[in-house]
Amino acid sequence: MKVYKAHIIYTPRREEFHVLENGYVAVGRDGRVVCVGSSLEALGCPDAEVLDFGNRLLIPAMNDVHVHAAQYHNQGIAMDLELLPWLQNYTFPEESKFSDSSYAELIYRRFVENMKRVGTMRAVVFATIHTEGTRRLMNIFREAGMGALVGKVAMNRNCPDSLQEGVADYVSGMEQLVAESTEPDALVRPIVTPRFIPSCTPEMLRACSEVARRYNLPVQSHLSENLSEIELVRQLEPESQGYGDAYRRYGLFGDTPTVMAHCVWSDEAERRLIRDGGVMVAHCPTSNFNVASGMAPIRTYLDEGISVGLGSDISGGHDLSIFRMMVYAIQVSKMHYQRSNHEQPFLSLSEAFWMATKSGGSFFGKVGSFEEGYDFDALVIDDANLFPADYNILQRLERFIYVGDDRNIVHRFCRGKEVCLAE
Amino acid sequence: MKVYKAHIIYTPRREEFHVLENGYVAVGRDGRVVCVGSSLEALGCPDAEVLDFGNRLLIPAMNDVHVHAAQYHNQGIAMDLELLPWLQNYTFPEESKFSDSSYAELIYRRFVENMKRVGTMRAVVFATIHTEGTRRLMNIFREAGMGALVGKVAMNRNCPDSLQEGVADYVSGMEQLVAESTEPDALVRPIVTPRFIPSCTPEMLRACSEVARRYNLPVQSHLSENLSEIELVRQLEPESQGYGDAYRRYGLFGDTPTVMAHCVWSDEAERRLIRDGGVMVAHCPTSNFNVASGMAPIRTYLDEGISVGLGSDISGGHDLSIFRMMVYAIQVSKMHYQRSNHEQPFLSLSEAFWMATKSGGSFFGKVGSFEEGYDFDALVIDDANLFPADYNILQRLERFIYVGDDRNIVHRFCRGKEVCLAE
Repeated sequence: MKVYKAHIIYTPRREEFHVLENGYVAVGRDGRVVCVGSSLEALGCPDAEVLDFGNRLLIPAMNDVHVHAAQYHNQGIAMDLELLPWLQNYTFPEESKFSDSSYAELIYRRFVENMKRVGTMRAVVFATIHTEGTRRLMNIFREAGMGALVGKVAMNRNCPDSLQEGVADYVSGMEQLVAESTEPDALVRPIVTPRFIPSCTPEMLRACSEVARRYNLPVQSHLSENLSEIELVRQLEPESQGYGDAYRRYGLFGDTPTVMAHCVWSDEAERRLIRDGGVMVAHCPTSNFNVASGMAPIRTYLDEGISVGLGSDISGGHDLSIFRMMVYAIQVSKMHYQRSNHEQPFLSLSEAFWMATKSGGSFFGKVGSFEEGYDFDALVIDDANLFPADYNILQRLERFIYVGDDRNIVHRFCRGKEVCLAE
Repeated sequence: MKVYKAHIIYTPRREEFHVLENGYVAVGRDGRVVCVGSSLEALGCPDAEVLDFGNRLLIPAMNDVHVHAAQYHNQGIAMDLELLPWLQNYTFPEESKFSDSSYAELIYRRFVENMKRVGTMRAVVFATIHTEGTRRLMNIFREAGMGALVGKVAMNRNCPDSLQEGVADYVSGMEQLVAESTEPDALVRPIVTPRFIPSCTPEMLRACSEVARRYNLPVQSHLSENLSEIELVRQLEPESQGYGDAYRRYGLFGDTPTVMAHCVWSDEAERRLIRDGGVMVAHCPTSNFNVASGMAPIRTYLDEGISVGLGSDISGGHDLSIFRMMVYAIQVSKMHYQRSNHEQPFLSLSEAFWMATKSGGSFFGKVGSFEEGYDFDALVIDDANLFPADYNILQRLERFIYVGDDRNIVHRFCRGKEVCLAE
């Protein structure tokens, strides 16, 4: 057992922070939290050896529930383009390059290193259609000791030939990746990833559903990101009641754990399907700004009992930091607050933090909190450059989130093991 | 004369970047740009000694046209509060502390150092009502070699007694600061700063106008930030046609160079007054999100010929970096683009860059460009950690703006002199 001491902050419930000033957390050999307390006696282990982080903050690590690893090279470029030319001139050509496994290896290493740097220990990731590239990405995550659900992407229509793969090849590629991921409770696993309805024929969508069910794999995709996309899906799937319903009819909407990115424009009926399917919404506020999609009404989702996590959505999003996503999520909700004449409350910091930790983390298991039995995924924050003596613990956390950056993250843990930067 | 070599980028016009790959800029002894060119021969000085910045980018420094130095201690806290409790519980108590000059000195030194760090070489600044604190701030800017218009704030109603000053004392304080700033073309000068209409009696507003005219000083204040504030001004100034018109009637709307922060909700009549008065709008997008004010329609302003700069508005805003304000300004404009069914184009990167450099800089004189006669205010950007070999020069700039941070800024110049970090 290991015991760490620091100012411990986490969100067992979204309404408020739980703070232990100079608190202790005991972590078992399996990397899970045994207990937290305000003294070693309270922990029931008065003689334990303690690693004391002093005046630093100890918080759950970040979870990114929607990000395209294969778009990492395009992070922060082509922001002046609209969605279609952006896809055609930048995104698709870039993803095509991942047929070259050494290129994939190069970019994916950069990506994972930066994810580590910004304090994200778990991610739900899009790779590309390429099985070998996807395998490389999974191995890089394994090597780093981080957690990831990695998606070999299913696409067989409405995109360049170089990014299409037949249904049989897709299934066979998935089966290889599944066969290589048999370790129980593994940190890195495959996830079924139809890109979105417009990229997949009905046969492909049915194959995805079948693979998910057969191997008990989670599912990720995109949903109701922008209005013209929704209209396109309506034309492609005239028998469905809407975009979410189309996924549902193919068995891809909660039959296994499912996360859908964006949901900017989900109407009441779709939101009901999301909630009833237990589907998680990946809220990607920077991407929704950059691609001019709109502002997702996250308060409404939470009120309706929908599960929400935060996603960086590189490279529609430009920033890999989930701390920055918290800030943006609050800002977006403040625009809904303003427009509703202050009737709909904006998101509090604890709610944003909870989405980034315990709520988003729930997609990976017991992740994102320091409650008993949770994986010890944690960050140690040194805010010495932010004048900590002038502020209380929660203000220090707020300042780190709003003003700090990766320089303040001095230790990273995933399931109890320290994750170190490459340099 | 000094000659610098690097990849030079600036925006003589807002529509496009001017790029000189491996270009040269010659700077006179007075700190002004003599010329730029793609070779020493083109510069007409083939034998000049050159300081070669190699593969780095050389861009104009940032200008922040709205920021509260005295709220720096509150940067990134109390973001969960609405405007009124935020003012009453955090902002006003904090500003009251600046009656203690040594406290003022402490916070202002931190503030100026951080402004320097993020690459802002010029700022239009609110201090507090306190003459000695304001003097300290001006001296800290002078010491740093940076440019600033520093406002001793005029307030004599609707705020705590400790933040009220009588009209005569205000005028006498301003006269002291003016008397200490007689150097022609000084980098640091006072600016007339009525906090906003609700904080100033008609007598105070008239005194402000009188001081501005007598000493030929610029003016800064707040305008049309949120709807309840506008309603309050309507009640306080029933004879004015609106908020902007109230300033105009007191002689504070373009009689001398004037910058007004926010202008989120300026209607057509007010926008006409802004344009006709040559008033600059300080667009503060993060603050407008954080304080739940709304999203200023900057494309409309530019189309109507209104001058716009960018402001961090610490501590309504949480980020001192004007590079981040560019990103936010583009994102805000993308929401207007979305809402207008793509009829109103969003801001391009060159337009955002131009607002941060040449347009915002125009409030300080010939600042913000590398055209002949402009003050050489410049930043050298080392983007080695952003894989520069993979991108062209403008993509490298875009990535620095979207993905980079102060670590990438390796040299800073203000009017030709290098400005160094304290550590």
